[in-house]
Amino acid sequence: MEEFKFSENPSLEAIRKLQAKFAADRNWDQYHTPRNLLLALVGEVGELAEIFQWKGEVKEGLPDFTDKEKEHVGQEMSDVLVYLIRLADKCNIDLPSAVEKKMKQNEQKYPVDKVYGKSDKYTAYQTTENTSKVLENGEPGACGET
Amino acid sequence: MEEFKFSENPSLEAIRKLQAKFAADRNWDQYHTPRNLLLALVGEVGELAEIFQWKGEVKEGLPDFTDKEKEHVGQEMSDVLVYLIRLADKCNIDLPSAVEKKMKQNEQKYPVDKVYGKSDKYTAYQTTENTSKVLENGEPGACGET
Amino acid sequence: MEEFKFSENPSLEAIRKLQAKFAADRNWDQYHTPRNLLLALVGEVGELAEIFQWKGEVKEGLPDFTDKEKEHVGQEMSDVLVYLIRLADKCNIDLPSAVEKKMKQNEQKYPVDKVYGKSDKYTAYQTTENTSKVLENGEPGACGET
Amino acid sequence: MEEFKFSENPSLEAIRKLQAKFAADRNWDQYHTPRNLLLALVGEVGELAEIFQWKGEVKEGLPDFTDKEKEHVGQEMSDVLVYLIRLADKCNIDLPSAVEKKMKQNEQKYPVDKVYGKSDKYTAYQTTENTSKVLENGEPGACGET
Repeated sequence: MEEFKFSENPSLEAIRKLQAKFAADRNWDQYHTPRNLLLALVGEVGELAEIFQWKGEVKEGLPDFTDKEKEHVGQEMSDVLVYLIRLADKCNIDLPSAVEKKMKQNEQKYPVDKVYGKSDKYTAYQTTENTSKVLENGEPGACGET
Repeated sequence: MEEFKFSENPSLEAIRKLQAKFAADRNWDQYHTPRNLLLALVGEVGELAEIFQWKGEVKEGLPDFTDKEKEHVGQEMSDVLVYLIRLADKCNIDLPSAVEKKMKQNEQKYPVDKVYGKSDKYTAYQTTENTSKVLENGEPGACGET
Repeated sequence: MEEFKFSENPSLEAIRKLQAKFAADRNWDQYHTPRNLLLALVGEVGELAEIFQWKGEVKEGLPDFTDKEKEHVGQEMSDVLVYLIRLADKCNIDLPSAVEKKMKQNEQKYPVDKVYGKSDKYTAYQTTENTSKVLENGEPGACGET
Repeated sequence: MEEFKFSENPSLEAIRKLQAKFAADRNWDQYHTPRNLLLALVGEVGELAEIFQWKGEVKEGLPDFTDKEKEHVGQEMSDVLVYLIRLADKCNIDLPSAVEKKMKQNEQKYPVDKVYGKSDKYTAYQTTENTSKVLENGEPGACGET
């Protein structure tokens, strides 16, 4: 079985550029202030959540979703991504660089030998080091919430 | 003045792959079910919102943010992106393809000559065509919320 | 077994009044603009989501949560409620009246004999009447999302 | 000029009870698991955000909103409140008691003489005491985010 992968394109920069042109062509830059875009992002995350809201736990790969539902999931994820990119653009945040840096920080913050598959050990580890937040949640974060 | 741009790398697929390895190395795949990741995404969007919450309108490029605050914005945007990518991965949604398709749909849904910079005209246009939601909001969406 | 109930007090108006005084006493009204409060609400919903994010499905009554976790859930729910009330206050929206009206609309929108426990029937019902959103979600909304 | 107030009714308990009956009448309790309701809450917050997303800063009392828009704001706030109450109900969290307790904690956490109208002083105060989060945000929270 072949493993699931993303297409290599478009890149984050390609999407950024296309969306900048899309807005400029329509004279919509005037609406794309940082907080307007942030609220639009919140709206799209809400729409993504609505697809999953009455389903109980869903399986990896969404085998129980109809094609139409999977299409819808892809559309809402796209909307979230587009607004996130547009927001980063308007904030002058180099999103690909920022994520590369954050992933390196997470590698150091969550050393494999200390957090391997054990949420309690992980929690104990966190306790002596930092962040009451993770402790309160009591389970590992994949992403080292700041 | 040179225009703001993103770095060309990492690609969405590169981030997906790195995060998949990051989770596998830590035996955290067990926690990365679709709805767990969706709630984690919501949590990160909340953290991003918190940075902007007491600021009133903020200017493009965040000139009034400290370096530390801008760093923080980049970190939270990264967390949002990472969980969105991880969620797409676990849902077997090819996010770059989905966004490319969605952007093409938006090009058609919002024809330049009908929506150019005029929120009232845009609204009227929407009225005769579709979506009460956009009408209620009364302003253009950059992204054609489905 | 006695059924679970809320305490009768404080009322929504009592909370509103206390929070208005709390902010006035601290000269914080200047920060409490509608969109600031809305983003603060988003932040608190994110914190609530974080408590549930790595848990998979959780049981009614949260029997598997520690006392500390249940306390934390109550705190985050309170923060969500407080900001929602404060937002309504600053928008001059009479929240108790609005919710009473909305509940009546929902009674009419979701007639018992048409939507009784059958998500497919419910969906079909929606199809012929209105709202593509509910159709896409394919499951009943408890609250008749507008 | 008379000050804005909420109606005294319905109480949080009255809304809880009505919603419990509403769901039971429709045999919808099966859908109302805690995480389903949490995602529904996220969806409603997204819908509320969408009303404000393209507006830039909005004034207290929403004087620039049409009657239809204000009605819509009230509806979405109601949906948020209803799902929050339903979630608390299904988690056996006594929301009115929890909020009363949290407000008392906030009174102590943010002493008037230390935080009065000065976001910098407030920030400094926080620095020596606790919570890096508030420090990073650099502005007062009305509600003492845990």
